[in-house]
Amino acid sequence: MMKQPLMISRLLMHAEKYHGDEEVVTRTVEGPVHRYTYRDLARRARQAAEALVTMKLGGGACVATLAWNTYRHLELYYAIPGVGSVCHTINPRLFHEQIVFIINHAEDVALFFDATFAPLVAELRPRCPTVKHWIALVEADRIPEQTPFARSYEALLESRPGVFAWPSFDENTASQLCYTSGTTGHPKGVLFSHRTTLLHSLTTALPDALSISTSEVVCPIVPMFHANGWGLPYTCPMVGAKLVLAGMNTDGESLYRLFEAEGVTFAGAVPTVWQGLIDYMQAGGLRLSSLRRFLVGGSACPFSIIRTLSQDYGVEALPGWGMTELSPVGTLTTFKRKHATLSEEERLAFRTNHGRPLFGIDLRLIGQHGEELACDGKSVGELQVRGLAVVDTYFRGDTSALVDGWFPTGDIATIDGDGYLKITDRSKDMIKSGGEWISSIELENIATLHPAVAMAAVIGVASAKWGERPLLLAVRRAGKSVDKEELLAWFEGKVARWWVPDDVQFVDSLPLTATGKLSKVTLRQRYQDYQLPAQGETHRNGLGLASGHARTGRTPGGN
Amino acid sequence: MMKQPLMISRLLMHAEKYHGDEEVVTRTVEGPVHRYTYRDLARRARQAAEALVTMKLGGGACVATLAWNTYRHLELYYAIPGVGSVCHTINPRLFHEQIVFIINHAEDVALFFDATFAPLVAELRPRCPTVKHWIALVEADRIPEQTPFARSYEALLESRPGVFAWPSFDENTASQLCYTSGTTGHPKGVLFSHRTTLLHSLTTALPDALSISTSEVVCPIVPMFHANGWGLPYTCPMVGAKLVLAGMNTDGESLYRLFEAEGVTFAGAVPTVWQGLIDYMQAGGLRLSSLRRFLVGGSACPFSIIRTLSQDYGVEALPGWGMTELSPVGTLTTFKRKHATLSEEERLAFRTNHGRPLFGIDLRLIGQHGEELACDGKSVGELQVRGLAVVDTYFRGDTSALVDGWFPTGDIATIDGDGYLKITDRSKDMIKSGGEWISSIELENIATLHPAVAMAAVIGVASAKWGERPLLLAVRRAGKSVDKEELLAWFEGKVARWWVPDDVQFVDSLPLTATGKLSKVTLRQRYQDYQLPAQGETHRNGLGLASGHARTGRTPGGN
Repeated sequence: MMKQPLMISRLLMHAEKYHGDEEVVTRTVEGPVHRYTYRDLARRARQAAEALVTMKLGGGACVATLAWNTYRHLELYYAIPGVGSVCHTINPRLFHEQIVFIINHAEDVALFFDATFAPLVAELRPRCPTVKHWIALVEADRIPEQTPFARSYEALLESRPGVFAWPSFDENTASQLCYTSGTTGHPKGVLFSHRTTLLHSLTTALPDALSISTSEVVCPIVPMFHANGWGLPYTCPMVGAKLVLAGMNTDGESLYRLFEAEGVTFAGAVPTVWQGLIDYMQAGGLRLSSLRRFLVGGSACPFSIIRTLSQDYGVEALPGWGMTELSPVGTLTTFKRKHATLSEEERLAFRTNHGRPLFGIDLRLIGQHGEELACDGKSVGELQVRGLAVVDTYFRGDTSALVDGWFPTGDIATIDGDGYLKITDRSKDMIKSGGEWISSIELENIATLHPAVAMAAVIGVASAKWGERPLLLAVRRAGKSVDKEELLAWFEGKVARWWVPDDVQFVDSLPLTATGKLSKVTLRQRYQDYQLPAQGETHRNGLGLASGHARTGRTPGGN
Repeated sequence: MMKQPLMISRLLMHAEKYHGDEEVVTRTVEGPVHRYTYRDLARRARQAAEALVTMKLGGGACVATLAWNTYRHLELYYAIPGVGSVCHTINPRLFHEQIVFIINHAEDVALFFDATFAPLVAELRPRCPTVKHWIALVEADRIPEQTPFARSYEALLESRPGVFAWPSFDENTASQLCYTSGTTGHPKGVLFSHRTTLLHSLTTALPDALSISTSEVVCPIVPMFHANGWGLPYTCPMVGAKLVLAGMNTDGESLYRLFEAEGVTFAGAVPTVWQGLIDYMQAGGLRLSSLRRFLVGGSACPFSIIRTLSQDYGVEALPGWGMTELSPVGTLTTFKRKHATLSEEERLAFRTNHGRPLFGIDLRLIGQHGEELACDGKSVGELQVRGLAVVDTYFRGDTSALVDGWFPTGDIATIDGDGYLKITDRSKDMIKSGGEWISSIELENIATLHPAVAMAAVIGVASAKWGERPLLLAVRRAGKSVDKEELLAWFEGKVARWWVPDDVQFVDSLPLTATGKLSKVTLRQRYQDYQLPAQGETHRNGLGLASGHARTGRTPGGN
């Protein structure tokens, strides 16, 4: 058989030759909609490659981007790995200290940035001595005033012939670098390769995974600076799907208009983005005319979002679970043949699991004593993963990230006999009450089903008697009212009585991390001295659970 | 990233762990239906691997099979490559001389065979000295009387623990061997690897390719001894689709009953098999209740089959083109977004092309002087291919099979701007009339559209004036009548007048090759001294084409 390495440039060459007319549409950072074809993308990526080579940025250097989802960022997604260098996508929502850290840690030699990040770039420049080239993703006459030292991307491309021949080299060569936004310690870099990127694109595009075909119009709302935009900027050209890039605005109105204007059929985002779209559509009495499926990940999706988009808008949820360390998609909730007889309601409810593993991904659960647990849908343990595109060592790390050849995810989960995964919590977010675990995610899911609750978070707070007890923090939906007693009563019959939170605090908003996830670390700090009301403990005590809750035989997440 | 080679055993491990309950159903060679699950398949494949290792058949030896589509053959599809050896699937329809040649050429050390092949095996044994083990795929008490020297496969598996741990090794290790049934010269072997097999499975399962999901019930009617059964025995476990193996009988009645009993949704076969199914259903006034799509390849599919299955039975055609040398699928006819507005009739007609390339496949056309031709849907040239799973050198060949890095297919074709391929002929089947090419396939397609024509073949026969002229050989449909004049008139207005065959011969049947394709070699031999009627030449002459047909400006296949 021919020796043909799995190169990222192959994706682009395939798109150019066999899907050359298909469109890439961008709502630019400047505002107007930009549109061109895969043929144009391929030509401009070659021009960018020619510029990189001229600047001696080929062959293994880390080249950074600080950019939104745009066609220019997409060109760099191909040009930088295409010349053998590493495309280091920086998450601008990280603390500035962290951004300085990762640029210096990666020893980035160049940084391409959108004009909106000019103030940040001006701040970074004196602190990032390895960066020799600062390139603004703008026309020559639009260099931001804060960054007079920057060159123009368009000027760099101009007059390049665009005939660059993509080289073939070892498919295990590093291609992209993403740092995970650790909530403690320094961010850690995950280095992907050409091979893992192509295998991830192939396995995620399969019918039982994202099922992305050339008939789709895909909007990867998830930022391209976050975990490779869930791989969609690579997967779409592979299959020739129209790609719609949302730029910097992912509020409900911006997305709604873009979806309708471009006929978007498939989009992927974190739950808060979907909630924003729902709120906008509900407020205006709007309908969706083309969107058929939505991928949701990044954090557990409240069931209310899944139900509303399905029942009120006819859009099917595709919940998934992944991590940057998995390239990033690990599991997706698609049905099996045996589920054909499920009712609509049962199908909806089924979507509260996190899905079954992609081909190439293997999962296992490890118990408290290091033993492998059964995949029976009941046993709760720490989730470990291995696969075709899973990290083994963090970038410039000196020790393996693995335990016994498996990557420990830090998630607590169950897995059933078909491989369907249910994350019950992050291990550090589980609440340990009377020696037994309570799943904060399950309580949050129930809370957000209440019609007056927009968002919810549950954290453990100190209890003299039980070690920890759950505290519910809830954001009321606009125009709705609910009080503590009513909300606590809402849990009755839905979970074991000892799982019911001891108290509720209504808040105006909840803190988010740089990647848009609920920041439980912040909440735990904020409520570290919180005093639970006495009746809560008495109430629990009244259940006769003096020596812990284990008598109920219930395991968290396993009912 | 973790180093995880692309091993065939990974397909089976994934199926066992995540689709363990899904079924593999076989209509056995003995008759009864056998059913078990992927979990059972995995266990028995491990037992078979244990037997192979005990017999010292691991580690690179060629191990042959002479077998139908059954669960036992499927077990060997995994067990033999799984221990690092090469599964050499022998096509029993080859001439016996050819079978002897390929066994000796491959130096097969063992041969597993179905009982139906016992007479052939008895004949092979004295002529194939490298084969040390003859294993009949039967119970211990059912060794065929013609092969008393054979061991029983079931006895070999019995009492094996089935705990074999599939080893990991270089993914470029050879895994399967198929010989192409050359019509001239010796058969040539194509050697596949673990890597190419997995990449072929991934790319063919994509939504725009075969779109095989866990919801499908797949019957790969195409024999497992022919081009890896088009990869389906590997692709189905990868996605967890129910697999239905048809055994040795692929007549219309047998297939109809199996499809209905097992709820088959997707099946793949050569056109003659589909015609047999149509004939059986039409004769009995039967309907199909589960079949939704049919893959057709191996030779050009008459439009009448595509239309009848779609319009009368609601089954969508998925025509494709491939070669053993391509692992084997190269192109498939699926639609693009731009085709959404086509009418039903236009969609049907569109299916007469051969499809666009899978991801990983690249096509080009080469003209008569070695120049690369445009992909404009008009230029006709020799089709060349390269890709992730394409041959470079035939097994034990001493020269590359490639020209300038590309595999020359021997097919004559056009390719349009989206990559849609239209094979106009095998280069050796093209008819050269007055210095211009006539496509025999296009004439056959038109002939089979006539309601009274069941099958048709067009070959070139010698013409003193034009070099060659087309002769149409036609099989009348049962109970229908048509004569020569009526059939020739059928072509008028459908092709250029100089393409209309000079004569028609009605025959009872057409000769087929070992792989079920029309044998034009046989026909050309049979009609090598055929005398065309004089008026045909006069007729042509009357068109004023004395110096060739080029004045019309028409290129074959390009209207």
